[in-house]
Amino acid sequence: MSGDLSQKIWPRGAFRDRNGVVCIGGISANDLVREFDTPIFVLDEDDFRARARQWRSAFEDSFGIDGVTVYYAGKAFISVAVAKWVSEEGLGLDVCTGGEFAIATSADFEPSRIAFHGNNKSLVEIQNAVAARVGLIIVDSFYELDRVAQTALAEEVVQKILLRVTPGVEAHTHEFIATAHEDVKFGFSINTGAAGEAVRLALASPHLELKGLHSHIGSQIFDTEGFEIAAHRVIGLLGAIRDEHGVELESLDLGGGYGIAYVEEDDPLSPEALAQRLYEIVKVKCDSYGLEIPHISIEPGRAIAGPSTVTIYTVGTVKTVELDGGRSRSYVSIDGGMSDNIRTALYDADYTAVLANRLSTESLSASRVVGKHCETGDIVVRDVELPIDITPGDLLATPATGAYGRSMASNYNHVPRPPVVAVSNGKARLIVRRETQEDLMRLEVPEGGS
Amino acid sequence: MSGDLSQKIWPRGAFRDRNGVVCIGGISANDLVREFDTPIFVLDEDDFRARARQWRSAFEDSFGIDGVTVYYAGKAFISVAVAKWVSEEGLGLDVCTGGEFAIATSADFEPSRIAFHGNNKSLVEIQNAVAARVGLIIVDSFYELDRVAQTALAEEVVQKILLRVTPGVEAHTHEFIATAHEDVKFGFSINTGAAGEAVRLALASPHLELKGLHSHIGSQIFDTEGFEIAAHRVIGLLGAIRDEHGVELESLDLGGGYGIAYVEEDDPLSPEALAQRLYEIVKVKCDSYGLEIPHISIEPGRAIAGPSTVTIYTVGTVKTVELDGGRSRSYVSIDGGMSDNIRTALYDADYTAVLANRLSTESLSASRVVGKHCETGDIVVRDVELPIDITPGDLLATPATGAYGRSMASNYNHVPRPPVVAVSNGKARLIVRRETQEDLMRLEVPEGGS
Repeated sequence: MSGDLSQKIWPRGAFRDRNGVVCIGGISANDLVREFDTPIFVLDEDDFRARARQWRSAFEDSFGIDGVTVYYAGKAFISVAVAKWVSEEGLGLDVCTGGEFAIATSADFEPSRIAFHGNNKSLVEIQNAVAARVGLIIVDSFYELDRVAQTALAEEVVQKILLRVTPGVEAHTHEFIATAHEDVKFGFSINTGAAGEAVRLALASPHLELKGLHSHIGSQIFDTEGFEIAAHRVIGLLGAIRDEHGVELESLDLGGGYGIAYVEEDDPLSPEALAQRLYEIVKVKCDSYGLEIPHISIEPGRAIAGPSTVTIYTVGTVKTVELDGGRSRSYVSIDGGMSDNIRTALYDADYTAVLANRLSTESLSASRVVGKHCETGDIVVRDVELPIDITPGDLLATPATGAYGRSMASNYNHVPRPPVVAVSNGKARLIVRRETQEDLMRLEVPEGGS
Repeated sequence: MSGDLSQKIWPRGAFRDRNGVVCIGGISANDLVREFDTPIFVLDEDDFRARARQWRSAFEDSFGIDGVTVYYAGKAFISVAVAKWVSEEGLGLDVCTGGEFAIATSADFEPSRIAFHGNNKSLVEIQNAVAARVGLIIVDSFYELDRVAQTALAEEVVQKILLRVTPGVEAHTHEFIATAHEDVKFGFSINTGAAGEAVRLALASPHLELKGLHSHIGSQIFDTEGFEIAAHRVIGLLGAIRDEHGVELESLDLGGGYGIAYVEEDDPLSPEALAQRLYEIVKVKCDSYGLEIPHISIEPGRAIAGPSTVTIYTVGTVKTVELDGGRSRSYVSIDGGMSDNIRTALYDADYTAVLANRLSTESLSASRVVGKHCETGDIVVRDVELPIDITPGDLLATPATGAYGRSMASNYNHVPRPPVVAVSNGKARLIVRRETQEDLMRLEVPEGGS
């Protein structure tokens, strides 16, 4: 069983102790569960911080210390404590709603280091962000260009903005599609001239300072081919802007979407390899247009938060189901499910899981980890080999659940959402507490009111 | 534009007033939004109650007034107010977690009319249910058979149970698959003999009263062919139980999954037609085994809650995107999204939407209604024809969102969840209030604690 906590998938501080109990941040799963119960998200703070630092230094090494800004994409997972870590590690923060901005504010995150995203920011969200002197607003539409300009006028500031452009590239894992058009809600199309028109309007507005362009091509990306096509088109637009307006825009945000390993077969690029490759791509394209390399931004979210976190569940039932062809499958039901991890059902995502509270020397069998929701699709881990002696009361741990797990969690079937416990150096502290039945009741208005 | 509020899809009390404003329960969308803001779930109480009554009377007409129990499946949507309506309309309630049971308790729902489902009920959930004298527990595994028996022993009661059996049928909309085996987490397999063994154990337990069998074959089902195969197998098991044990089990629960119309093309059976068809199926099968027709239960959830509710959003931006082949698509961004309706992304579900705050005489164009989340897949209505003059500030209404909308809602991107407003006879009352940023902060433990 040694080696089942692959460093590729698990937090860096994960290991099995002499009794075979999974330990994270120096604390055993058994101790964590005794204190915090299950299900529980266990976030290895040192792993999170180390990855944040690694992304920053990898890109600073390639682009120069003043040549790049790494924004942590808060949509993957953000809490007040996490926002503080991000700040302390010297990263910027990418938020895309007033709610995420409020978390950053509560963490005293320096507003000038925040970039505000989103295809449909409300006027109130824009007003609050501008009033708080947010560093950048990534403008997504002509309506928004006007709204931000009007708000900046009212606030008597000049708001720095990027324009989100759609380069016609969509990338996921090892595949990318390049088209002339992009059938998405985001951004200004380069191909139709919308992006060029937005640049003209932004440059003409006395209340907007157009810092540059933003492009985001997909999610869970393992290769750089998609980035190469996108860079070609976006840097081509930078060249066209220089030619038309005599202005070399300072900044280019390459977005996020950098993939992580959920299972052993996944093979993402290291931040260092990615940084070097993106530098080469940007350098070649800029050279070909006679442009200086702009200030680069990237927005890793999943790549920092994802591998930091392990979900621990308690097994409730185990059931062997016969399949066609004489095969069988073990259904291991745990005390969470699609309410704390919707990604398996939503994206057909792969995860793995291990027996966490003890070692088993029994043989492995084809297993499926399922939740407690009243729905056949309530699956956490579709296919995993687990010891045949797994039994109710055992703990099961699912790694790489830090991104889009707690952040997309629901109260489906009125199941309270699990807490997030940060672990470091043998110490555990709650950073998001467990929801209670009382919490779930607080929105109820039994007798009605208006 | 008349006729765009098809009675097939919209709540029965929905119409456009003389100004073309969508009205639900006698209140215009404009008035509702002035009072409650957007996004908002508007639940037509009379529609909900009428459907609950219709399901009950349709099945009582076919099976006899004492021959059937209609359980409302709370997982579709339950709140304290809704549980009270269900009780007042004389239906039972199907819950599948302690959280749903707690809502029922808060509504003073008579416990004997509650059926407790779930593949992985915790021991605490079982203990609370038995202690509260829940009417039925639908037992899903051998572990649970033991847990319920032990709990009943400790409580000194005899707990009425059904056994959930898997008949090897999976049905969705117009398709069903019948196999020997069922690759699902739920129930006891008839084919492997597990169901027969569970019957033997249940009959032998002095603390369990085996009332009958439960079978559920799928969701959003439009035909009865799947039920016919399932009934054949489950009633066959009833016959085998009679032959082996000399006992005719009293009850047969046919589960839920009855489909509704989300778009005009959907064509579900009426409750009356379904009841009559299910009666004929059950009658024929029972006759063939020489069995009396058992007491039948059904569990409509979506079929009652789904059509009762309309989500109203405010349009924030509109963007026309060019597609290949000279076509174009209008992206209409609203102030909600996958956080209040995950079904489009999760199940590739179809919905429709209309301009709600006014009439438009402009021509229609191919449109997509998208949310405000930072994700390309954040789509609420994939394909809908909307007037080309839709503009920011307009209201958009999406019907048939009462089931699995609010119940599966998340705080993705820290977006607060919308309220549920019940409307009836021109009056609106809040039954689930809007979440606030303060609510979202209440689980934060910024400085850590343990």
